[in-house]
Parts: sequence; C-alpha cells; structure tokens
Amino acid sequence: MAGQLSNAWILSPMVIGLIGLALAFFFYGNVKRQPIGGTETMNRIAKYIREGAMAFLTREYKVLAVYTLVVFVVLGFTLGWLAADAFVLGAFLSLLAGFCGMQAATLANVRTAEAARRGSKPNALLIALDGGAVMGLSVAGLGLVGLTAVYFSLRDNPSLMNTTLHAFAVGASSIALFARIGGGIFTKAADVGADIAGKVIEGIPEDDPRNPGVVADNVGDNVGDVAGMGADIYESMVAAIVSAVAISLTTADSVHLKSLAPGISQIGERNLGGALPLILSGVGLAISILGIFLARALRGSKPATVLRNCLIIPPIALTAVSAILMPILGATQTVTICLAAGAIGGAVIGLVTEYYTAHLPIRRVAESSRTGAATNIIQGLAVGKESVILPMLILCAVAWLSNAQLGLYGVAIAAVGMLAGTAIVMTVDAYGPISDNAGGISEMSGLGKEVRDITDELDSVGNTTAAIGKGFAIGSATLTVVALFSAYSMEITHARGPNGIPFHLELTDATVLIGVLLGAILPFWVSASTMLAVGHAAQKIVIEIARQFKEIPGLLEGTADPEPAHIVDIATKAALIEMIQPGLVAILAPTLTGFILGPTALAGMLAGSLAVGSTLSLFMANSGGAWDNAKKHIEKGDLEGHVKGGDAHKAAVVGDTVGDPFKDTSGPGVAILIKVMSVVSLLIAPLIANR
Amino acid sequence: MAGQLSNAWILSPMVIGLIGLALAFFFYGNVKRQPIGGTETMNRIAKYIREGAMAFLTREYKVLAVYTLVVFVVLGFTLGWLAADAFVLGAFLSLLAGFCGMQAATLANVRTAEAARRGSKPNALLIALDGGAVMGLSVAGLGLVGLTAVYFSLRDNPSLMNTTLHAFAVGASSIALFARIGGGIFTKAADVGADIAGKVIEGIPEDDPRNPGVVADNVGDNVGDVAGMGADIYESMVAAIVSAVAISLTTADSVHLKSLAPGISQIGERNLGGALPLILSGVGLAISILGIFLARALRGSKPATVLRNCLIIPPIALTAVSAILMPILGATQTVTICLAAGAIGGAVIGLVTEYYTAHLPIRRVAESSRTGAATNIIQGLAVGKESVILPMLILCAVAWLSNAQLGLYGVAIAAVGMLAGTAIVMTVDAYGPISDNAGGISEMSGLGKEVRDITDELDSVGNTTAAIGKGFAIGSATLTVVALFSAYSMEITHARGPNGIPFHLELTDATVLIGVLLGAILPFWVSASTMLAVGHAAQKIVIEIARQFKEIPGLLEGTADPEPAHIVDIATKAALIEMIQPGLVAILAPTLTGFILGPTALAGMLAGSLAVGSTLSLFMANSGGAWDNAKKHIEKGDLEGHVKGGDAHKAAVVGDTVGDPFKDTSGPGVAILIKVMSVVSLLIAPLIANR
Repeated sequence: MAGQLSNAWILSPMVIGLIGLALAFFFYGNVKRQPIGGTETMNRIAKYIREGAMAFLTREYKVLAVYTLVVFVVLGFTLGWLAADAFVLGAFLSLLAGFCGMQAATLANVRTAEAARRGSKPNALLIALDGGAVMGLSVAGLGLVGLTAVYFSLRDNPSLMNTTLHAFAVGASSIALFARIGGGIFTKAADVGADIAGKVIEGIPEDDPRNPGVVADNVGDNVGDVAGMGADIYESMVAAIVSAVAISLTTADSVHLKSLAPGISQIGERNLGGALPLILSGVGLAISILGIFLARALRGSKPATVLRNCLIIPPIALTAVSAILMPILGATQTVTICLAAGAIGGAVIGLVTEYYTAHLPIRRVAESSRTGAATNIIQGLAVGKESVILPMLILCAVAWLSNAQLGLYGVAIAAVGMLAGTAIVMTVDAYGPISDNAGGISEMSGLGKEVRDITDELDSVGNTTAAIGKGFAIGSATLTVVALFSAYSMEITHARGPNGIPFHLELTDATVLIGVLLGAILPFWVSASTMLAVGHAAQKIVIEIARQFKEIPGLLEGTADPEPAHIVDIATKAALIEMIQPGLVAILAPTLTGFILGPTALAGMLAGSLAVGSTLSLFMANSGGAWDNAKKHIEKGDLEGHVKGGDAHKAAVVGDTVGDPFKDTSGPGVAILIKVMSVVSLLIAPLIANR
Repeated sequence: MAGQLSNAWILSPMVIGLIGLALAFFFYGNVKRQPIGGTETMNRIAKYIREGAMAFLTREYKVLAVYTLVVFVVLGFTLGWLAADAFVLGAFLSLLAGFCGMQAATLANVRTAEAARRGSKPNALLIALDGGAVMGLSVAGLGLVGLTAVYFSLRDNPSLMNTTLHAFAVGASSIALFARIGGGIFTKAADVGADIAGKVIEGIPEDDPRNPGVVADNVGDNVGDVAGMGADIYESMVAAIVSAVAISLTTADSVHLKSLAPGISQIGERNLGGALPLILSGVGLAISILGIFLARALRGSKPATVLRNCLIIPPIALTAVSAILMPILGATQTVTICLAAGAIGGAVIGLVTEYYTAHLPIRRVAESSRTGAATNIIQGLAVGKESVILPMLILCAVAWLSNAQLGLYGVAIAAVGMLAGTAIVMTVDAYGPISDNAGGISEMSGLGKEVRDITDELDSVGNTTAAIGKGFAIGSATLTVVALFSAYSMEITHARGPNGIPFHLELTDATVLIGVLLGAILPFWVSASTMLAVGHAAQKIVIEIARQFKEIPGLLEGTADPEPAHIVDIATKAALIEMIQPGLVAILAPTLTGFILGPTALAGMLAGSLAVGSTLSLFMANSGGAWDNAKKHIEKGDLEGHVKGGDAHKAAVVGDTVGDPFKDTSGPGVAILIKVMSVVSLLIAPLIANR
C-alpha cells in the first residue's frame, strides 16, 4: 500500500493548480471592475505604460518564439519529439504566466492610484494585492498544472519522464533567463537614462512628468519586476520540483532514500519520491491561496504588517501540514524536516536580506555619503559583500541538515520547501511594481501630496519585499543546483549503461578543476555584459531625451507632451538585442563544454559557476538594495544635517544609479545563469555521456 | 644514473640564490653611494618617509612575531618541532626580504629624485632600478636558499620533508597575507584619506605638500607596494615550488610522472621530480640576474622599452635553457613544455592585463565619465568583470596543456615557470613605488616641471608594471592551488595508511558541495572586511588632517610644516588592528572546517574559494587599474573637451578612489587568501585525515 499512491494524490497538485488559475481569473475580474483613473491625465499615462509594456512583451515574445523553434527542432532530432514538445510547453507556460501577470498589473496600477486619490488606503492596497495575485497564482498554477500533467502521463516510464521533465525545465529556464535579462536591461536602461538625462543635460528635470524617460521607467517596472520576476520564480519552482523528481527516479543512493519510506519496495519508493515534490508544492499553493485571502481580509492594517505576515505564516503552516500528511502518505517525517529546513531557511534569508537592505547597514551607507560618492560606493560594495556571508551559511546549514535526512533528494525537497510559497511571494513581489506605478501615475498626473503619501507607503513596503523575493530566488537556486549534481551524475551513469566506464567526479582530477575555473568565468561574463548593456541602452535614451527637449517646443515649459513611445521603443530594441549575448553564453557554454571537454569538465563547470554565481548575485542584489534604501533614508531626512538635493544626497544618488543594474539586471541574471546551466547539463547528459 | 642527481645539481639553486643575495648587497651599496637630495626639504621629506615606513615595519613585525610564536608552539606540539622551525624560517625569510627591500627603496626614492633634479633620466632610471633589484633579488634569493636548504637536508626522508616544506610554505603564506593586507590597508587609507580631506574640508589642498596626509601616502607606497608586494611574490614562488615538490613526493599518479623520465626507478623519478622545481627556479633567477644587468645597460633607452623587455625576454630564455637542460638531467621535454606554458601564459596574462588597464577599455571608462560618477563606476566595474574572462581562459589552457604532459605535477611546474622570473618581475614592481616616491618628493620639495617630467615618465611605466605583477601573482596562485589539490588528497590518503578508508572527493557528495559553498563565502568576507578597514582608517585620517589645519597656525599659508608622523601613526595602528580579522579568517576557516567537518568538506572549500577568489581578485585588481588610468587619461588631456578639475575628471576621481582599495587591498588580499588556505590545508592534512 504505502508508496503506491492513488491517482487522486498524484493529481491533487493539478487540481489545486487549476483552482489557483480560476482564482487568478477571479482576481483579474476584480481588478478590472475597479474604477479607472478619475482624471484624463491618469488614464493617458496609464495607457502609455500599458501599451509600452505590452509592446515590449509582444516583441520579446517574437524573439523568444524564434529561439524556442530552433531549440525545438534541435531537441526533436537529438532527444526525441516528446522532449521537444515538453520544452515548448515549459517555455509557453512561462510566457503565458508573464502575459497574464502583466495584463493584470497594467490595469491595477492606475486603479490603485485612483483608490488612493479617493483616499482609501485599504482599497488601494487591495487592488495592488489583487493585481499581484494574478501573477502569483498564474505562475504557481501554470507551473503545477504543467508539471503534474507530464508526471502523471509518464509515471510508468521513468526514463522517458526524466528527459521530458528536463526538457520542460530547460524551456522554463531559458525563457526566464531571457525575460529576466531583457526585462532587467529595459527597466534599468530607462531608469538610469532618465536619471542621467536629468543630471547632465542642463535644465532637464529628473523624475518629472516632462521628462519623457519617466514613462519608460514605469514600463520598465512592469517588464522587469512583473514579467521578468515572474518568469524567474516560475523557473525556480519548476527547477526545484524537477530536480527532486529526477533524483528520486535515478538515484542509486538507496541508503538515503530508504529512510523516505522504510519497508516499501524500491518502485514504491520511487513513485512516492517522485510524487512528493508535486504534492507538497500543491499544499504550498493551497496555503498561499489562504494567505492571499488572509491578506485581503487584513487590508485595514498597516501594509508592512500585512505583507510580512504573508511571508512568515506560510512556511510554518506548510511544516504543520506536512507533519500531518507524511504518515498518511506512508512517508517518514524526514521529509517534513527537509521541507521545514528549506521553508524556514528561506524566511531567515529573507530577514537577513531585509537587515542588509533596510537597517544598520544602510544607515552606514548613508553616513558614508557625507564624504562623497566614492565612500558611498566603497561602503555599499562592502555591505553587499558582507551580506553574502549569512545567507550562504544558512544555505549550507539547510543543505547539511536535509542531506543528513535524505541525501541530495532531501536537499531538493528543501528547495521545494523554500519555494512552496511561490504564489504568495510572487503576489507580494508583483504588488511592489504595481504600487510603484501607482505612485508614478499620481506624480505625473499631479495628484496631491495626500495621494502620494498613500502610494508611497504601499511602495516602500514593496521595496523590501522585492529584496526578500530575490533572496528566495537566489537561495532556492543554490539548493536546486546542489541537488541537481546528483541527478546529473546519475544521468551520465545511466546513459553509459551497466557496462560503461563508471563516472567519477574527483576534485583531484585536473579536468574537473579546469571545469571549475571555466565555470567561475561565466557569472562574471554575464554580469559584465548585462551591466554594459544597461550602460549602452541608457546612453541612447539620454540622447533621445535630449532630442525631445530640443525639438518639441513647449516641453520644458510643460505646455507640450513628451513622446514616451520613442523611448520605450529604444529601450525595447536595446533590451532585445543586448539580451542575446548573455543568454547564449548561458546556454552554449555548458553545451559546448559538455560536447568538447566532456561530462567531467562540465560537472566542474557547474560547481565553479555555482560558487561564483550564488555569491556574486547575492552581493549585487544586496549592494543595490542598500544603495537604493540609503538614498531613500537621506531623502526622508534621516541623515542629520543633510537634505534631498544636498551633497550627501547627490553622492547617494550615484550609489543608487550604480545599484540599479546591479540589483535588477546583473544580480538576477547571474542567479538564473546557474540554474539554466544545470538544467541544460541535465538535459544533454545522455548525449555527452561517452565523451 | 638518470634521475639520481648529483648533489651539485641539487645545490645549484642555493648557489645561484647566494649569488643573487650578494648582488642585492652590491646594488644596495650602489644606491647608497648616490648623492642624497640637493635641497634640505628633499632630505627632510625623505627622512619622514623612511622613518614612517620603518616605524610601520617595526610595529608590524612585532605583531607578526607574536603570531609566529603562537603558531610555532601549536605546530611544535602537533606536527613536531622540525615543522615548527621550518614555519619560523619561512616566515622569517619573508620578513627579512621585506626589510631589505624597504631599506633600499627608502634610500633610492630621494636619490632618484636627485638624479632627476640634476637632469639625468638614465641615472634616475638606474637608481630606481637598483633599488628595486635589492627587493627582487632578496625575495628570490632568500626563497631559493631557504627551500634548497630544507630540501637538501631532508632529501632522504620524503615524508618528513613534506611536512617540513608545508610548514615553510605556511610561514611564508601567512606573513604574506598579513603584510599584504596590513600594507594594503595602510597605503590606501592614507591615499583615500588625503584625497577625501582635500575634497570635503573647505580649503584643504589635495596632493599638496601642506596636506599632512601626502607623506603618509608616500610611506604607504613603500609598505604596500614594496614590502607587501615582496612578501606576496616571495610566497607565490615558495608555494609553487613546494606544491611541485610535494606532488612529486606523494603522488600515486605514476602514469603521468613516468613520462618525466621513462625508464628510471620510482625513487629516482621522485628525486628528479623533487629537485627539478628548485633547479628550474635557480635557472630562472640566473636569467633574471642577466636581465637586470641588461636593463641597466639599456638605461639610455625609453623606460617603457627597458621594462617591457624585462618581462618578455626571461620566459623565452627560460624555455631555451630548459630545453637544453632536460636531456642532461635525464628528463624528457615534457617538463620544458609545462614550464614554457606557464612562463609564456604568464606573459600573455600580463599583456591582457595591460590591455584592460591601459588601452581601449580605459578610454571607454574615461568616456563614461562624461555622464558622471555613476556611469564611470558602472563602466569600470564592467571592464573589471570582463577582464576576468581571458586570463582565466589562458590559465585553463595552461593547466590543460601541462596536465596533459605530466598530470598535476605538470600544472605545478607551469606555476614554477610562471614565477621563474620572480626576481626581475619583483625588481620592476618595486621600481614603481620608488619612482612614484621620487615624484612625490620632487612635488613636495617644489622642484620644477622638468624634474617632474622625468619622474612622471618613470612612474607611468611603473603603474602598468604593477598591474602586470598582480596578474602574475593571481595567475600563479590559481595554478598552484589547482596543483595542490592532488598533494592534499595524497597527504590524506598517506596519513590514513594502506588500510585506511580510501579518500574520495566526489563532487556529487553533499559534503563536498557544502564545502564549495562555504569556500565561496571567504573571498567575499575578506574582501568586505578589507574594504571596510580602508574606509574606517581613512575616516580617522581625514579627522586628523582637519585637526592639523585647524590647530597648526600657518599650515594653510605654507609658513608652518604639517605633522605627518601623526598620520603615519594613525594609519599604522589602524592597519595593524584591521588586518587581524581577515588574516584570522583566512587561517582559521580551513583549520576549523578541517577539524569540524572533515577533510572532504575542506577540499570542497578549497575549490569554492579557488573559483571565487581567482575571479574576484582579477576583477578587483583590473577594475582598480582601469579607473586609475582612466583618471590619468583625462588628466593628460586625452578626453576631448575635458580638463583636469572638470566634471568628467571629478567623476573619474570617484572611480579612482573606489579603485584604490579594490586594486591594492582587497584584490591582492583575496589572491593570497586562496594560497594560504591551500597550504594550511596541506599542512593540517595529517591531523584531520581520519575525521
């Protein structure tokens, strides 16, 4: 009995996923029903933003369609058409989630502003939350439905299922990579471009409705922080689940897996091990849904309290449910321990991230701005570097604890636990840019200070939750990649067959070490190219802004309107072109290394990029967050003797500008890089096994 | 016959080392004989610098004496008193080399300035070169004499020799770590402090003799770039030789080592394998000596030409000599191939480093300064990240080629080849701060523009050679650490005995992967703490400079003298206190990991810190170099439409200030970190083998 799960159990995540999607539809309707902007300007700006965001998405999707088609054909001829189909499915669901989320976000922004204009903070919070929930539920719902469908239909053919799931994950990962990098370049190019134009070109106002870059900046929030982040989190969830399923199906590590459900047959164990990550993610989604309703019910409280509860309650609830569920499913509580380690570890990383981007460290960065931009930069870089230490130690502890329970399968379960709250984390994450947009629309429409105060309060919470969301993404990426090593090694061994050369990955093997060094290069490469991309694109935007101020009569005086569509167009083109190089590096580097240097060097490469990528992305994400909040700290007047526009503030603006591509382009790009490389390696393992 | 080398061969490096030391003595006399400063001010400033540098060194050595004593006792009780003695010897020779080099450098600076004052560029070049040669020959000579003595006296007891050599290397490494970090903090705190004081405190002139921080800045050049760099390069040479000897003595990799000298007995092979790295380093020193004399003979040519030849000719000469020598010693040309790969690879890395810190990339950084400090910083960070790619690829190619010849022993020989020119590289490196000091003395003494032109020309070459020297240090560190993996694994296997559990370092083992993640943290930790240390110390210096301008009447008007000794004192105290934390992290992290988590986790930690440390230090060193030279590019008037003191220049100064701790404190500190960790691991391997 135990271990041979009934179909009802295996299909439960799909049911919960479908409920989530239905609710996403419901929330979308809810948002749409709300009153649109009460002034003509509000609606005009909202329309610019919506059209700009959708135009970007459409053009991005065209590029990605070509990429998907090429890979589809290549996979079809090498790994079979089932794998190719799964790749397309994984990619398509990612695009679909991004599309739904963006639709909702670009409706919710102006409606949130309108609620704020009418003076109702609870309503404004509710609309922003509902808008975010569309994204959150789409991401988790589509991911679960897709994965469960693949798992269920192939559950009697582990070998075929493995390749199919890997292909699904590669689809999800590569779209996430391009969406995150492309969106990141767009949003930061617009942001940096608008800022610099305001600074270096005489008389052009920064952060002002007359500056044509400001609309593009708001578009960027949507394409980067909604669509990009959504693809990222979707990919994280998929990769974590796939790694756990893959290990349970291929691992020879029976000593460890035995403790999952002692006394049942090996096949029963595998079935249980394969279904558990899906079932648990389903439970996580159910809890997230309850969390979203809880947050809606609490809308009268302080936004900070509401959102913090959204992040803290789910891990605890998940642990409790798992403790009840495991005996029913015939599994031991080792699973609950791994799951709890991941979920609670993720929350602790979130709190550490919050500390480094909101408390003493940012006051220090603000203090250092007194002596100029150089000391601000030095301090911000140092804070970012220091912020690497604790999250990495927590990840090591989580990995150690869960490995002690269930081997690398346990580590994968910890990653699943960390991401079980995907729907609510993503809801809160998407809530951020919606409130930010609402603030932007209020500002550009000249609504009063009281309106701004409401949107500012909503937005300030969003900043911190964005940082926490990145912590989750990077943390789960690290655990997932650790877990994938074992799956990769098993795939190679499996592909070599029972009479093949045993596959060893000794660190004393020079091939492994050379791989480690090669892998160490890649995060720096991707990081350099994405930062340069932001720089290039920002320069083009500066030129266009200058042109508009020169050629549009009355723009500076406020009597004529800017042409934001041109800026959006420039940012879109630049983002789509510049995302190609880093994207190809991430996909081709493991492929070429695998085919040319062989599977041993490729394993080393994964280890090297894991080491560098996890730390480098944490460093960049947190440095950027610290600079951003240090600037806000000074703007709020919390640095004694300094005001907005003063020397210390100017220095802090330099830090914030450097931090923009750090935290929203390079950092997330590098975090995805290491996952893409892992799943690509897993997928090509059968093809390179004998090299 | 073949393989059983005569004592004459084994002792040859000691003889060449002694010749080198005798020449160091000769060059020291040469420098001392030159006329001292022609003006009273020159000599007074020179005296300040000399006294400040020596005061720092004395106090630093006291701290290091305590450290050495503690480790001596610990080692004596755990690994025996012979190892403890060797540790002290390795440490003492490092301190001695630093002392000799600094004595010469602080005599040569004012004499170089005097020669320039008298209008003789060749004489100025000669004095600076002779001063640098004292450091270069001391470093290489003392290293070779010490290592050969240990090797010769224990050559019949491989097991004892191994532990003894490891202890020697740990002595060298840990002193290098403290000297580099302490010196780096001192020099950059003084530099940044003087700059900031000039900027933020109304009316205080930057880079002006009245600014009391300027003398400390010049002291810093000596303690950081002469003593610190010397300890670093000494350590690199020692670690490379020790890793090669250790592998030849313990490796079971007989398949590879067989091709070293086919047909001779295993013991003969080991003797040959152990002696070769020493003999080849001796050859390298002999070639360097000829190179120094060649440079002296060419002193009439352009300084840039002279110094470039110093770096390009030795690798070629070394390859030629090795090709002749190997048949005589009974070894195959595989050794020559490895040696050449390392030596030429090192030179190519030097050229790449030069490209990134002197050509198109720095023009781009300068261009980006047009739009302000933020874009300058973004561009500099991106250039630094990009500059990681090629050197790492070259290192991979060198490692791959030499591994194909002689396994990891070949990789160690490549590292020896890269460092065979230690004496001349270090000569050229120490020449830099001497010319820089000469320029500073001329400036502060108010000597005319013609004098400055001479010292500036000497100095500008020094900047590039400093960057190249860092490339060598980081490159050889990477190769050495790669090679040490095999030695470490063999040590563990050996210590476990023939009946012990076989030692495996599988990357799929969660313990290894957790180690990799732990190791990835450390470079960021050391980097964060060293950057913060510079920030703290600089703040203190700013306050003291402000005090002097406030309390010393007539200082601002130039009628009273500043009190530079106070600044030197503050920088010294700060450097000595702040170097302790990163130093202890580097030494305790591998020790604690080894004892608590065991040898498998420790191996993973080494791999993780290798991946992150090698790339992070290249990134920081080259970003810093690019910012520095971009600033100089603008100062020379090469950025159209911008002059010194303009907005673009101000933006470039911000970059340069950020780059200071990057390139001279954190970057080199991280590079040494990975070597210290490796040799400490090697040393404690017998103690942790069964954990």
